[in-house]
Amino acid sequence: MKPLSIITLDQISDALDSIDLLGEMRSAFIAYSSGRSVIPPVGELIIDEQPPGEVHIKYGYVRGGAHYVVKIASGFPRNQELGLPPGNGMMILFDVSNGSISSILLDEGQLTDVRTAAAGALASSVLGVPGARVGIIGTGVQARLQAVHHASALDRDDLMVWGRNLGKCSLLASDLEAHGLKVEIAESAEELAERCRTIVTCTASHTPLLTRPMIQPGTHVTAVGSDTPDKQELDPRILGSADLVVVDSLSQGLVRGEVARSIDAGTITPGRVVELGQILDGSNPGRSDPNHCTVADLTGVAVQDLFIAEAVARSLV
Amino acid sequence: MKPLSIITLDQISDALDSIDLLGEMRSAFIAYSSGRSVIPPVGELIIDEQPPGEVHIKYGYVRGGAHYVVKIASGFPRNQELGLPPGNGMMILFDVSNGSISSILLDEGQLTDVRTAAAGALASSVLGVPGARVGIIGTGVQARLQAVHHASALDRDDLMVWGRNLGKCSLLASDLEAHGLKVEIAESAEELAERCRTIVTCTASHTPLLTRPMIQPGTHVTAVGSDTPDKQELDPRILGSADLVVVDSLSQGLVRGEVARSIDAGTITPGRVVELGQILDGSNPGRSDPNHCTVADLTGVAVQDLFIAEAVARSLV
Repeated sequence: MKPLSIITLDQISDALDSIDLLGEMRSAFIAYSSGRSVIPPVGELIIDEQPPGEVHIKYGYVRGGAHYVVKIASGFPRNQELGLPPGNGMMILFDVSNGSISSILLDEGQLTDVRTAAAGALASSVLGVPGARVGIIGTGVQARLQAVHHASALDRDDLMVWGRNLGKCSLLASDLEAHGLKVEIAESAEELAERCRTIVTCTASHTPLLTRPMIQPGTHVTAVGSDTPDKQELDPRILGSADLVVVDSLSQGLVRGEVARSIDAGTITPGRVVELGQILDGSNPGRSDPNHCTVADLTGVAVQDLFIAEAVARSLV
Repeated sequence: MKPLSIITLDQISDALDSIDLLGEMRSAFIAYSSGRSVIPPVGELIIDEQPPGEVHIKYGYVRGGAHYVVKIASGFPRNQELGLPPGNGMMILFDVSNGSISSILLDEGQLTDVRTAAAGALASSVLGVPGARVGIIGTGVQARLQAVHHASALDRDDLMVWGRNLGKCSLLASDLEAHGLKVEIAESAEELAERCRTIVTCTASHTPLLTRPMIQPGTHVTAVGSDTPDKQELDPRILGSADLVVVDSLSQGLVRGEVARSIDAGTITPGRVVELGQILDGSNPGRSDPNHCTVADLTGVAVQDLFIAEAVARSLV
């Protein structure tokens, strides 16, 4: 057995600079949709104490690979009142041939944030209309990361942002401008939807922020905020009327996120939903008309954690 | 946030010397059966590659406590052919108020082994007839630990052992004798059952090793080997005719272990099964007659991992 390596957050941050994140996510989703991966259902621990929190455990492996991953990621929204980041956690790579620990990545939840943003940017770059302006709904850590990864992936540095909290929205805009992006704050979700053909939703909302009438022809929406059965960012009629509905994982999409809510609401059926990996590997053509409306609903899959953790560990060897 | 501590196997081994393991397991089962704990279903990753393995993820917290635990424990049976221990894994304690990591216990699966043995000895000491001789069925790591913990908890140093592999059985006997115990090797499971009124089964068998006719009046059986839906050590008729059937966790017992198999076989109904914590807290009287037959079926609960991990971390402060 090789000795285990403990990888700190500083090492992880350095490693991320040299990793092709969109390439890793592409490989991850293709492996997932090819059926080569073994990904059990997400483990969920709801802490309904004061302060409340939730913990997700995602785990699995890809046949023929070297590791299985266990990823633990938490969200404690009230941490922010204490000056602590809301997210935390770690990823662990184990040798799939004998169960020994290969690497412990003390990422404090940041690799989950980064791989979620990279997956969102990948989905938008594959499904959106080329050249479209990107609008971000949300003002948190994920909104910032989605903005940065979308700007890079779509090679367009002007963005629009909107959030329910105007103060946080201004902070996000300043932050992104300091990062070299041009940012306009929308007055409303409606304005953002009117002026952006690629929209990313990344909030913890429990009620829809975008309704069907707001969506213009030719719009693509990447929704990443809803990762539990009770969160919801999109009006189910948006998915109902979309020309293409894409998920990262069909099995997860049936119980979590926008697709699950839309199936519950009766606006779509599971048979209409396509996996992102099927578009990435060419077995589904994806967007076929610039005027079509498309939705990518990403709840986050352990295979993403496996690929990003392996990439970080590999880059430090 | 306090800095996280990484606890090595050497530190864990040292710490275990000063911990009242049966006391910790008693507190754990009482907390569990009182309804104060939040323990989601066990996560399971089956690695059906070559070599095969299985990984169990157990996690949860007790209301009013300081931590939630995530425990990852693997079993790769063919490791032994390579000179590696079959078990591995780790436990992680997180601050339940904000999700930060408190301690990473690099126990390589050993705390799971130890807490399982301590729970077995606790069950036998509470449910068995006082003074009865203990017989161990099995020859692996868990057999050795069950023998040692039973001898200590029941204050009786003569044991009988039996296993399907006679070579391993002799090795176990020598090992236990070196540990100061007096060990007799039974010719068969039948002989062991005839001569021991407390029997511990700790194998990975998929077919019953003890049948109903082998069980003498006044026998208590603690079964710890079956922790998945497909393993089985006891003839379902043993549970069917037992005067008392006890589990660590009713919800787990309905899907895993001997109780699940016996419910499937129709020999018992869930309503007949009692939790160990209910006997430990006095709400169920336990064994009421020296001639009764009793069975404790332990599949292992995250609350045991929480209590042993907290005890180790506390002892190192």
